[in-house]
Order: sequence, then structure tokens, then C-alpha cells
Amino acid sequence: MTDDVEVPPVPATGPRHQAPGDVGLVQAHDFVFDRTFAFKSGQTLPGFTLRYETYGTLNATRDNAVLICHALSGDHHCAGWHSADDRKPGWWNNLIGPGKAVDTRRFFVVCANVLGGCQGSTGPSSVDPATGRPYGSTFPFVTVRDMVYAQKLLLDHLGISGLHAAIGGSMGGMTALLTAIEFPTLVRRVVAMATTARESAQAIAFNEVGRQAIMQDPAWNHGDYPSDGGPRVGLAIARMMAHITYVSDASMDRKFGRRKKDTAAADAYTFDPQFEVEGYLRHQAQAFINRFDANSYLYISRALDQYDLAHAYGSLERAFAPVQAESLVVGFASDWLFPPEQNRALALALLRAGKQASYAELATDLGHDSFLLESEELYGLVRGFLEREAVAFDFAI
Amino acid sequence: MTDDVEVPPVPATGPRHQAPGDVGLVQAHDFVFDRTFAFKSGQTLPGFTLRYETYGTLNATRDNAVLICHALSGDHHCAGWHSADDRKPGWWNNLIGPGKAVDTRRFFVVCANVLGGCQGSTGPSSVDPATGRPYGSTFPFVTVRDMVYAQKLLLDHLGISGLHAAIGGSMGGMTALLTAIEFPTLVRRVVAMATTARESAQAIAFNEVGRQAIMQDPAWNHGDYPSDGGPRVGLAIARMMAHITYVSDASMDRKFGRRKKDTAAADAYTFDPQFEVEGYLRHQAQAFINRFDANSYLYISRALDQYDLAHAYGSLERAFAPVQAESLVVGFASDWLFPPEQNRALALALLRAGKQASYAELATDLGHDSFLLESEELYGLVRGFLEREAVAFDFAI
Repeated sequence: MTDDVEVPPVPATGPRHQAPGDVGLVQAHDFVFDRTFAFKSGQTLPGFTLRYETYGTLNATRDNAVLICHALSGDHHCAGWHSADDRKPGWWNNLIGPGKAVDTRRFFVVCANVLGGCQGSTGPSSVDPATGRPYGSTFPFVTVRDMVYAQKLLLDHLGISGLHAAIGGSMGGMTALLTAIEFPTLVRRVVAMATTARESAQAIAFNEVGRQAIMQDPAWNHGDYPSDGGPRVGLAIARMMAHITYVSDASMDRKFGRRKKDTAAADAYTFDPQFEVEGYLRHQAQAFINRFDANSYLYISRALDQYDLAHAYGSLERAFAPVQAESLVVGFASDWLFPPEQNRALALALLRAGKQASYAELATDLGHDSFLLESEELYGLVRGFLEREAVAFDFAI
Repeated sequence: MTDDVEVPPVPATGPRHQAPGDVGLVQAHDFVFDRTFAFKSGQTLPGFTLRYETYGTLNATRDNAVLICHALSGDHHCAGWHSADDRKPGWWNNLIGPGKAVDTRRFFVVCANVLGGCQGSTGPSSVDPATGRPYGSTFPFVTVRDMVYAQKLLLDHLGISGLHAAIGGSMGGMTALLTAIEFPTLVRRVVAMATTARESAQAIAFNEVGRQAIMQDPAWNHGDYPSDGGPRVGLAIARMMAHITYVSDASMDRKFGRRKKDTAAADAYTFDPQFEVEGYLRHQAQAFINRFDANSYLYISRALDQYDLAHAYGSLERAFAPVQAESLVVGFASDWLFPPEQNRALALALLRAGKQASYAELATDLGHDSFLLESEELYGLVRGFLEREAVAFDFAI
């Protein structure tokens, strides 16, 4: 996901800076799991922390929780804002809030930074208690399955044994679906957007170029770098390239075209940024390297490459066999990272496995990041799917 | 263009290792221009060399020459091979030769490495006679127009005042078209493939990421590096990424899919190359950095960004107004670097400018590099276009 998600401006009205439709000021919490956690790789950690946020209220029957799952570069802060001064809202603030598609007057929303992340959850940049230094590349290899199992421990801690829904886009779609596969009785509804059952060769290739940019930066130092250092150049290159894959040719042309940064230098001969799109990419990269850990980028992008439902379970149909949830899969016509066909294939496999599943393809031209952007059509689909009576599910249990 | 163009195996039969259909052993020549050459930027060189090859025989009326124009990473060696030991044929060996679409029994083929290149023509890696060291980033900024003007001097030197055709793909299509614009009476036919009147924001963005990878490599040293050194890591990153844009998701999936390099380590957890596509990209990058100069990559990619016919001439129609050539523009359905629409737009503008022009769109799924690959459909189009009687042109002159 990109750093320039277009969200409505943050209203600053009322004593708590909360306007109708916004969750307002929110606070992150830490869930500390203090027993041994075994990764799929066989490696272990003596424990971990997940940073998370919640919005709305868990009802008396504890059955109104909605789990939000973030993408590669996302985090737990998906709605509201952290202080009156920090006016950057959560990354899905347009979808989540009182009266919004994920209505926090009705649902108790939970969102956690994934295991392996770098926004408060335990990951390669966390300090290894055994050495007093960041884990770096001694951190266990993490998989989407590990993220899902760690998140399940958080849900247990919160006393949530049934999710009204698990919702996510891109990697978040993988996480949401895998939660429904691994914990069938936990998840009643899944909304998976702009996602895939497994990356294509092209997506693996882009990830590999990004990893090479990071790992070939001398400052990477085999993953061993101080928290205020690291391969900033390599991470910036990786992010610039990845950013291109999150948007579309059409949206970049509409936003920047071939406009020059400075008309005075429009016809200059230079390798400095000359086109607006060049300056924009550098700005994106700078914002990213100030908030994201390069090792987390390596670990999580590798987890994406290794996610392969058919390989892990024998076939997609077998993977989906235990699922009890109803699913809504949403593809975006202009998404060329996880194209519509890959989303549609998920819904078809769910149907073949005898599950309730719908596929919706939205005609936006904004590329992969469409799931993050303003879309009344998307809001309507999500709202309708979350709020209708799940008759079929009631029969199934 | 990629380094793994699939060409038929080189036959090694007969005394000159020449089989029917192949030009066989060829030799490169140097054209030395020893007067001041002024670049569009206003900068000058005291002279330059263009390395070139020719196949076939210039006829008595000197009107059977076909100019071949190469792409960013191509060179003058477009057909045949250099020695019995060096079995790598020229990059367009499948198109050019006796009896092939560009029939060297009939046509005199000329192909030169562009000004600014690094395969024998003067470029940033050439030694500056004033300092005895490579020009590096003191080399003048080069434009496609400069390449075209330098190449015209070579044609003058060869006594060629009329080209039967100018043919090129990608940047070569830009060069071929610009030759017909700047020297209307020189060019009778243009074949431009997988090209554009100007890059989109996305194409500029990919070029910028590649340049940043090179320029942020400490070994770039502001363009000042020894001929056996330089930013090999940055150039490799740039090439890996660019390679992805030359092919297609479908072709990568067919060629590699998610196959692992080593089945024993198929489920290993590692950042080393694990998927075949990762090893392939690294191999491509290694081959490239052994033959290409990083500064040339910067200069030529910037020339591509700055090529903009509508901007340079006021509009596409004005750009094409002087053209006397007939044009065949070929787009490839799966080319997402210079997509079919951009090729089609060239043909439409030529038609609006009152020129003879045709547009053909081929349904290959091999991506941008389709113009380099085996295609009987493409061969048939090129052959028919080159060999038919150009009635309209004869009237026009």
C-alpha cells in the first residue's frame, strides 16, 4: 500500500476532535504473549508483542468483532488518529467509523500489526532479550500462517471466540482467508480484496528486485544494523519500484503525466528529478524509509512469496474445505499486481468447495491500491455483506 | 530488450559456417567523424566514432539500404555472428538474412551502435582525448535526435542518400520515426514496433528507479569510475527491474511459474534465490553488467524520457507533417511498457497528417520484447511492407 492514500481531511471539531463518521482519537495497545511461540519454520521466540487498536464496543454476546488485516507496509492504525496534532488518519479511515461501511456503532473493530512487522509488534527490529540488540536476520522466518496464529492468540486474549468478519486487502486478504481456513469456527464472514491464492512469477520477481536492492546495500550488513541506521538507500529503491506496482499507468498519467517539476527547467538536461513523477516517487520513498524497517520488508515480502494455498493444502478446494465463513472477494479491474483473475479464482475455488462465496469486480482504474481509496461502490458492497442476516451460517453451525 | 532472446541455434555447417537464411560471419566497422559535433543540449564533442555492421550489397543505384535501429540495451550487431567460436548471433538474426523478412540478398542492411552507447560507439565510457580518462558524467547529454543526426553522418559516409526503409523496435522505433521526420527525403519506409511518441508517467517512473539504483551505488561516484569498475550492483538492480517490464506476467508464469530452483530446498526458508524466476533475473543482470556501461544506461534512459514528439514539434501532426515515408506501426497486445494504444496513436497521427500509415496489432502474450521474438506473423508483415512497390512514394517525390 502507498503512503498517499487519499482520505478525507481530518475534521477538528468538538472537544474530542470527533466528527460524525470518524472514530476520532484512538490509542494503541500492546498484547504481550510470554510463552514460547513456534514458527512454521520450526524456529521459536520466547514470546512476542502485538500492537493493536480497537474501535467500538464488544457486545455482551461477544459476537460483533470485525478483524481488520493489513497489507505489507500497513499497520494496526487503520482508523482515527493518535493525537490532535497528528492529523494523519488510519489507513482505512474512509471505510471504518460510526456510520461507515464498517460501522463502529455496531461492530467492535480489532486491527493488529503483524508478527514480523515494525510498528510495535515483535519483528526483526525488536530487541532480542538474549543479546540486547535487534534480532536483525536472526529473527525467525515468518509466514502468513505465523501471522494468523499470533493474531489468534490476541483474539483469545480479548475473549473473542467468534468474528463477525475478517476483512483485508492484498496481504490482508491472504491473512483474512487463512484465518477462516485455520480457524473455521472463528470466522463467520471474510472480505478479501485485491489479493491472491499465490503470487505469480512477476510478483515474486518484483519482490526479489526489492530485496536485492536492500540486501546489496552495504548498510544492510547481513541484517545487522543499528535501529537508527540500516539500508535506507536500498529500502528507498525497493519502495519506489513497489509503489509503481501499487498504482496504474492510467492513474499515474492522470496524476502526473509528463508534467515537469519546474517549468523554468522544463527543457533542462539533467539526471535530477525533472518530471513530477520522479519527485513524487522520491518523496514516497523518503516517507517510507522513515517509518519502515528494511528487515521487516525482507521478511514480510518473503512471506508473501511463500504463501501458496494450493501448495500448502494440496489444492485450493482442499484448502477451503474446512471454511465455514461466507466470503466476498473483490477484484479491481486495473490491479496488475494481483489481477482480477486471481481474485476471481479464489471465489470460484470457494464455490467448488461448496462454500458461499461472491465475487465482485470493480471497474476503477486506480490499480492495486484501489481497495484503499474512496469508492461508494466498495463501501456499499462491504456494508451489505456485513449487515445482512447470515442465514446460511446459522444453519451450518 | 532482454539478453535471452530466443533465436534459432546457430548452424555450424560449411566452410564459412553459413547456412541458408543466415548472414554468417560478420565484422564490425568504425566510422570516425573528426569534426565538431553539436548536441541538442548545446554541448559539443570534437568528434565521435560509430561502430556499425552491414550485411548484403549496396546496389549500383544505392537505393536498397535498410537501416536497423536498436533499443536501449541493443547494439550494432543485429545479425550473424562474429567468429566461429562466438555462437551468440545478432539480436535480430531471426528477422535479417538471406531469404528472411529483411532479405539480405535484396537489401543492404546497416546497423550502428547509437551515439552515447557503449559497444564501440562514442559514449560516456569512451576516453576523453582531453583528459585521457573516460568521459563519465562529463559526456554531453544525448537525445534521440542526436543519435539520429550522428547516424545520418554515417549514412552520408556510406554514400546512402535514400533508405529503402528504417526499421526499429522500442527506442529503435523512435529513432526510425525521427529519422523520417528530420530527413524526409532520406526515408521511404518506416517500420516502428513496440514504441511510442512519448513515454507515459509509468515508463518514466521505472527509468527513474533504475537510475536511482545506479546513482545511489557508491561505486557510481558521480559518474567517475574506472572502465573495470563502476556501479555494478546498481546496474544489476536496474536491469532486473527493467527486465520484468520487457516481458509479461503470462510469459513469466509460463516460463517459470512458481517452480523452485531445487526441489530439495523447495520449502526452505531463505532470502537466497529459491524460485527459478529469482535465479533467472540474477543471471540476466550478471550478463548485462558484463556488457553494458552504467553511465550509458543513465544517458540513454534519460534520452528516452525526454523524447516527446508532440512537445518538440507542437503536436504529433506537426511532427509528422514533413514525413514522406510510408509507415507500418506494429503494436503487441501484451506490451505494457509501450502498450498497443501508444503504437496505434502514432499511426492515427500519421494518417491525420495525411501520410500513408498502417497499424497492425499482434496478439502475442510475450510483452514488450515480442518484437524480438519468433513470429511468422511479424515476418510476413515486414516482408510484405518492404517488398511491395511503393507507388505512392514514387508519385510524391
